[in-house]
Amino acid sequence: MTLDDSWFSEPYDVTGSAFSLKLKAKVHDEQSEFQHIEIFETETYGRLMVFDGCVMLTTLDNFIYHEMMSHTALQSHADPKEVLIIGGGDCGTLREVLKHDSVTHCVQVDIDERVTRVTEEFFPELCESNNDPRAELLFEDGIKYVADCDNAQFDVVIIDSTDPVGQAARLFGTAFYTDCQRITRSGGILVAQSESPLKQLDLIKSMSNNMKAAGYSNTHTFEFPQSCYPTGWWSCTLAGKDNDLQKPRDLHKDITTKYYTSASHKGGLTLRPFMKTALED
Amino acid sequence: MTLDDSWFSEPYDVTGSAFSLKLKAKVHDEQSEFQHIEIFETETYGRLMVFDGCVMLTTLDNFIYHEMMSHTALQSHADPKEVLIIGGGDCGTLREVLKHDSVTHCVQVDIDERVTRVTEEFFPELCESNNDPRAELLFEDGIKYVADCDNAQFDVVIIDSTDPVGQAARLFGTAFYTDCQRITRSGGILVAQSESPLKQLDLIKSMSNNMKAAGYSNTHTFEFPQSCYPTGWWSCTLAGKDNDLQKPRDLHKDITTKYYTSASHKGGLTLRPFMKTALED
Repeated sequence: MTLDDSWFSEPYDVTGSAFSLKLKAKVHDEQSEFQHIEIFETETYGRLMVFDGCVMLTTLDNFIYHEMMSHTALQSHADPKEVLIIGGGDCGTLREVLKHDSVTHCVQVDIDERVTRVTEEFFPELCESNNDPRAELLFEDGIKYVADCDNAQFDVVIIDSTDPVGQAARLFGTAFYTDCQRITRSGGILVAQSESPLKQLDLIKSMSNNMKAAGYSNTHTFEFPQSCYPTGWWSCTLAGKDNDLQKPRDLHKDITTKYYTSASHKGGLTLRPFMKTALED
Repeated sequence: MTLDDSWFSEPYDVTGSAFSLKLKAKVHDEQSEFQHIEIFETETYGRLMVFDGCVMLTTLDNFIYHEMMSHTALQSHADPKEVLIIGGGDCGTLREVLKHDSVTHCVQVDIDERVTRVTEEFFPELCESNNDPRAELLFEDGIKYVADCDNAQFDVVIIDSTDPVGQAARLFGTAFYTDCQRITRSGGILVAQSESPLKQLDLIKSMSNNMKAAGYSNTHTFEFPQSCYPTGWWSCTLAGKDNDLQKPRDLHKDITTKYYTSASHKGGLTLRPFMKTALED
């Protein structure tokens, strides 16, 4: 069975697999200063956002990624107030972060303003907290932003990046993590999207080692299904600054989620055995 | 981007998505009495088994499905001794069941003997417990087998079936579940594969309702990533006969798994909120 152009298909060399969605129509196509942005209407996943041929998110399943990136980190912190998001221009992570009353200020730094403008038009539900007075949206280079920050400015730093290809590869290296560690307060957290646990454990291990080399005391990887990403299975890796990541608070009853639960967070503190074998020395 | 025949692609109408694997070669092709069986060597997932165009399993990721189907059920039972597997001709579930010392007898009833013979040749690791003296492999109609069983013969019944299409659809109905309930002892468990939690919650709810209509006191659905299945996310649904499914034992230290952990089992007792909304009245 071959798949023709009535499907959007993303083959991914790293995993030797492809994921495809049946299309109704393309509803947006632009070349921004930084990337080729396409939006499609699909038959069953709602809308689909694609950068340079790579699936970024769909209406149907983005909640999992955004909840895991934000709540797993914020719930591992005793009292998160100042949060920084590097990347994340679709604003879905920002929306989840601002569900936490403890947060007084959340800065989102994405290099491409067009991502946010396109998301506002085609995924307005992700942008419903963009006008929250605690939100500060900046459109500039995240690496430079972090380098220019004062020490100990943030409680939680979230790296909501694309794959480690091209410019984004620097977001997975020790030099960047060292700056993130410097601008994080004691007890603070770094969290980064860390690709597929099924096929990219070497990368995850390298990220974890880089985080430790940058001065973080502990790391832990959480895995979650993510239908639209390669292998359908994804992960985020947390690093703690004087924080062992082992005592998540219970999610406040006023915060509604669709995927994240405190029980699953606690369950995830025990690594899957195949990941433990690969990630621990 | 279109995908040509250097890929095996399985588009699935129900989910409007497709999953594809890059191929090296086809290594087996036969029409059994019941289905078209193909085996491929893939670039990155090891071998791939396909029935009638539908992905059954790959070398890389079958451990998740087989562990979840077996251990989630057996660990929810106080002392599982007699186990019945309906379907499961690839013998991967059987292998996991027989890791439990408490099990004295496990009957596997698959209608198609060719599935087991082909698996022995191309996935020998799944068949390494086929000669265990506790294993009894039968090749006949599972529905008739269950109808002919005595009352209260089994502690755990596992429905390791294909999708609810054609003959297999009867394995998802109240009549069959009623027979399963009859042949199960008090405190016993039924577990059935229950498709994608992302796109098939209506089916899962219907299965759960059918199980309750068949006399089971409680049901609970567990979800897990399964890269090679539609949406990359799959589930199994447990039903308890005088068993509330809420007190899993800790996995014995001598049982090795790659995915299943007691911590994740306990975490999974709290439904994901989007599933709770859809499945509970």
